[in-house]
Order: sequence, then C-alpha cells, then structure tokens
Amino acid sequence: MRCKPTVFDHSPIAFTVLAGFALLAVACDREPARAPPEPEERAASAPALDPLPSWNDTSTKRAILDFIERVTDEDGTEFVPADERIATFDNDGTLWSEQPVYNQLAFAFDRVHALAPQHPEWQQQQPFKGVLEGDLESVAASGERGLVGLMMATHVGNTTDEFAGVVTDWINSARHPRFDRPYTDMVYKPMLELLALLRERGFETYVVSGGGVEFMRPWAERVYGIPPEQVIGSRVRVEYQLRDGAPVLLRLPDAEHVDDGPGKPVGIHQQIGRRPIAAFGNSDGDFEMLEWTTSAPGLRLGMIVHHTDAEREWAYDRGSPVGALERALDEAPAHGWLVVDMKRDWNMIFPFQGG
Amino acid sequence: MRCKPTVFDHSPIAFTVLAGFALLAVACDREPARAPPEPEERAASAPALDPLPSWNDTSTKRAILDFIERVTDEDGTEFVPADERIATFDNDGTLWSEQPVYNQLAFAFDRVHALAPQHPEWQQQQPFKGVLEGDLESVAASGERGLVGLMMATHVGNTTDEFAGVVTDWINSARHPRFDRPYTDMVYKPMLELLALLRERGFETYVVSGGGVEFMRPWAERVYGIPPEQVIGSRVRVEYQLRDGAPVLLRLPDAEHVDDGPGKPVGIHQQIGRRPIAAFGNSDGDFEMLEWTTSAPGLRLGMIVHHTDAEREWAYDRGSPVGALERALDEAPAHGWLVVDMKRDWNMIFPFQGG
Repeated sequence: MRCKPTVFDHSPIAFTVLAGFALLAVACDREPARAPPEPEERAASAPALDPLPSWNDTSTKRAILDFIERVTDEDGTEFVPADERIATFDNDGTLWSEQPVYNQLAFAFDRVHALAPQHPEWQQQQPFKGVLEGDLESVAASGERGLVGLMMATHVGNTTDEFAGVVTDWINSARHPRFDRPYTDMVYKPMLELLALLRERGFETYVVSGGGVEFMRPWAERVYGIPPEQVIGSRVRVEYQLRDGAPVLLRLPDAEHVDDGPGKPVGIHQQIGRRPIAAFGNSDGDFEMLEWTTSAPGLRLGMIVHHTDAEREWAYDRGSPVGALERALDEAPAHGWLVVDMKRDWNMIFPFQGG
Repeated sequence: MRCKPTVFDHSPIAFTVLAGFALLAVACDREPARAPPEPEERAASAPALDPLPSWNDTSTKRAILDFIERVTDEDGTEFVPADERIATFDNDGTLWSEQPVYNQLAFAFDRVHALAPQHPEWQQQQPFKGVLEGDLESVAASGERGLVGLMMATHVGNTTDEFAGVVTDWINSARHPRFDRPYTDMVYKPMLELLALLRERGFETYVVSGGGVEFMRPWAERVYGIPPEQVIGSRVRVEYQLRDGAPVLLRLPDAEHVDDGPGKPVGIHQQIGRRPIAAFGNSDGDFEMLEWTTSAPGLRLGMIVHHTDAEREWAYDRGSPVGALERALDEAPAHGWLVVDMKRDWNMIFPFQGG
C-alpha cells in the first residue's frame, strides 16, 4: 500500500496549482475503539501547574488563558454555558504541519504508486505519469482539472469502510519526507495542550478543515482526542447501496462540500448548528471561520498560527503555495485576532523535538 | 406570525401528495441556553425503580432493557464502549406525532397565512390560494411542484438566525388541531423515557429525520434533551454573506440533502461518521437507517413504532399518506427488528394524558 515518496526528491517545485486545489473529501468509518487521550492532569487548587507548558509566557498565552477564565467564570458577566463552548480548529497548518505539501496530497501521490499496477495507462497519462516519475512540474502543469482527476482516482470508487482502511494503513506506515516521522507525529504540541485545556474547561473541540473529512476521522480521535462526530471537512457524495445483500456507502466522484473559506461557516452550521465562541486557523482559508466566530456578540476568541520558524518547522505566509496567509494577517488587528508567532510563543513545536 | 389553522377544518382530505413530499430543511441557530432535561434518577442499587414506567411489562420492553444491559456490561462479550453507543431516532411518528399532517407542513401553511399580506398574488395562485382558503384538495392537486414552491416560499430567503426566530415563535404559539396543545406536547412519553435511559447508560442520542434540520434544532434540546449538533435532517443550501459588514448565512431554494430513506444512512455518515448500534423509526422512510444499523456485526437494536391506537393517538400503517409502514413491517421479523404496538406496549402516549 505504501510507496516511496519520490515526489519529494525534486525541489523547488511549482506547487502553486497543487496547493490551490481544495483537498477533497475522504472515507471513514472508524478505528477500533480507543480512549481519547486524557486531558492534562491539574490538581484542583494548584495554579502552579502550567496547563500550557509548551507556550512561552508571552502576551499570547496570557490572552488565551484570560479568555478561558472569563467565559468559564460563573460569576462573571462574560460567562458562557458549557454547551455553548464550541471551539473550532483548522487542521493543516494549525494542528499539524502542511509542508512541503498538504499531507493529504502526499497520501494521494502514494495512492497513485499503490494503484499504478492496476492502471497501466497511467504510465503515459498526466498527472499520473508525473507522480510516478517524481516529475511534479508535470503534475502541476496538468492544472486544476488534472488534479481533480488525481484526487478522484485516488479517493473515490470504494466504500467508506474500504477508504477508512486505506487511510489507516497509510497513516500507520507513511513517513514525512523531511523529519522521517509518521505524519501523526507532525502535530503541534502547544495545540495539543490547548485542545486538552479547552476540553477540561468544558469546551467541545471540533476540527474544521479544508481536508477531506474521511481522511481525518480514522485517526483524529487517537491523535487529537477528537471523535469522528466532531470532525468537519470537505466531502464527496456517498450513496447507499446493497452489495450481496449488505449495505455499503459508496464514495462518488462528486465534491459535495468544499470546507474552505466561506465553506467553513457553512460546514460548521450544517454539522454543529451553533456558532463557535473560539476559532483557530493559520491561513486565509480560515478567514471566514474566524470572522463568523468573532463577529457574534459576547467575548470571542480568534487566533492565527503564524509560521515563523524555519528551523524547527517552516516559515511562510504571503505568497506561499501552501497555507497562504495575507488578508487574515493584515486584518487580524482590526478583528482583535491573536497572532501566534511560533518562534517566539512556542518553546516546543513537535512532541518528538523534546523539551 | 401565527394564523388560524383553517386548513384542518376540511376533512377527509387527499394528503397523499402532501405526505409524499419530503420535508425540506429549515433554519437554526439556537435557543437561549437551557439545560437539557436531567435523565431519570436511578438509585445505584435499586432495580425496583422502573426506568421506563410508561412501557407495559411486555416482551418489547424486556427486549429493550436486555439490549441495553448487554451492550453496557463490561464483563460481557457484547460490550460496546461508550463512545460507540450511538442511537438514532426518527422524529415524525417516532418521537412526536405526524397526524393529520407532518407538523412542519402545518408550520408551512401557517407561514403562508402570515406572509400573505406581502404576497397579494397568492390570492390567485396555487397552492397558496388553496392554503389561504382552506381548500387542501387544490393544494394537493398542485402536485409536487406546487408543494416544493410552497415549502420554498415559506422556508428560504431569510438568514439562519431569522428562520430560527420564526420557528421558535411558531413552536411557542401554534397548537395542534385535534388536541389543542402546543406541538411540543405531542411527544411520546415512552420515547422520552427511552431517550433519557439511553443517555444515562452512556449513549449519544441523535435525531435523524426527514424533516428540516433547522425546523427541529431550535426546540429539540428543550423538548428531547438533544442538542443542535445531534440533530440530523433535510437541509437547504446556505451561503455565507456579509450584510452591512456582519456575516450571515442565507437560506437558498436548493434542497441540498433529503434525509429520508437511503438519505438517512448518508446523513448519519456525514454528521456522525460512526455507524449507530441502535435505531428507532416508524415508517418505510426509516427502512435503510434500520438496515444500515442492524446489519453491522455485534449486538444491534432496530425498533419500529407501530401506530395502533386510534383512541389515544392514531392508527395507521399500510397506504397511509403520512408515515406509511409497509415494507419495514413486512421485513421486521427477518431483520430481528422490534415492533412496538403502541396500544399494547405503552400505558401512556402523550405526557398530558396523565397516568
């Protein structure tokens, strides 16, 4: 199932088109039952125990803690009842890394390698030929149409259970090209701490991602402590069918919902039916989610993770083919959104980097 | 906002077309925060306290209690971890009544009366003319096209917040034509008990209805103890827009998802991403939800509420224009689905009928 990610051997590569492509929905049922990670332990009256140890003691951290205190203070004027404490988190670039390409695109490339023996025509057909030969210039040159074809060929035509199995196999075996680690290690320790703290304080934490919902659900509970029903993402249409008398849901080549930009508030509304009180993103694709969240009355928190650390992770914002951050960065002060400077605000990024 | 339901003065009326029309999605945000009803109190070691007092001591009740015991027995072979204890409930005819017409259709008729002053053309235009004159034969004669027009004219074009307000006003003021009670009183006491018992035993209880999700969310938490994020239903497309700089979600005349029949497993998969272990319905529109639920490996529960009590509620199944029950009734034994005989199995139906 797993192939060498030779595509990464070539660089620099024009990923503009690749990155501009909203990642499509992907299949789920679930992994075998696994308890979500326990929230950080906190002694009842021991404020000395830092709930966010990977965050430096900067104004960013203090603003986050202040927000949590105020909305959970039953005697305060800004108290929010527990069932309305909805927090939404973008995934790519906010909870896990998205460089050198979105992890789901790496998955799609690996799928092309895995499926190639059944598709001899791919040897001559772009963008598959480019993927197989590690020639991503050709892949990018195939444009949006080529990439939609690539995503569809690697993501649909199977049942939701089958696709969840493929994702699980990949996530358990694939390794990130730069760090030679499983992709599920490429998660931000400070954000895992924040997720745990929010849940401990009565929040429901949701993933709201442009990535495929069925690409995330099989591992989100194990990695983030977020169960399938709290993962929102892009999705393809599925159809109920009987196969030998047994019902299945078949994944069709039809992008039913693109959960990016203005699609994020729509996805939130469809699945949650409540407006979040806190939202966390890192790119212009999160602008509307933050706007929708923080423009409501009452105390609200919007936060942008700014990638500023090329050494420990990556540094990018304007003009980046992946996770471009321009408008949201420019307008953050006017909206009162926090901007996390990863280099300055985080003393650890990935859990495996120690600290 | 509220008009006399003169449409009900005429009977018998051909509702076949009306009832064949899958009710469309309807707008939400939420009601002011309200704690969900507390589950029934149960002393830890006092089995004498009946958790389902409105259920007679029949084989149906015993089968339900047996299922709950077995999937929650940590030492048993059929144990299901709490986070996989998903139970899905149809709404119309399963949790509340659906006669003489689906309550959402009564809402639509009342909306026609309320909006008529702004639509003088409706005086001459079917199906609006028929609604305004209480001539439902004409309404039914307008066919599916007329009814889609009626639903759209009364359900879209406003924002999700505005629509939630309209629904809340209606649900707080409208009264059922036969029982002269608020529609939220037309709920089945035995099913409220079952919802509470399942939650007490670690289940997540979802509504999965052909009705509009935004028609249900504003009151489902208060009436059923089910929060907005656990309500699944039909929906129209919504679009993110700015109005005077403030974001809104506008409801559009486009039925994006019809959560009925094979649409129910699809809606469950989209929103929950897990397969239920128990499903409750009352009509052929619930067939696929029950099939999807009970065909999975492991102990599963499928249950059909059979309307058999014309005196306390209604008696109907085959050929009924509302909530027709034919195939699911025929195939229930082969699938091992329980069939509730309302007359025999329930000692109380509506809470206001005492007991």
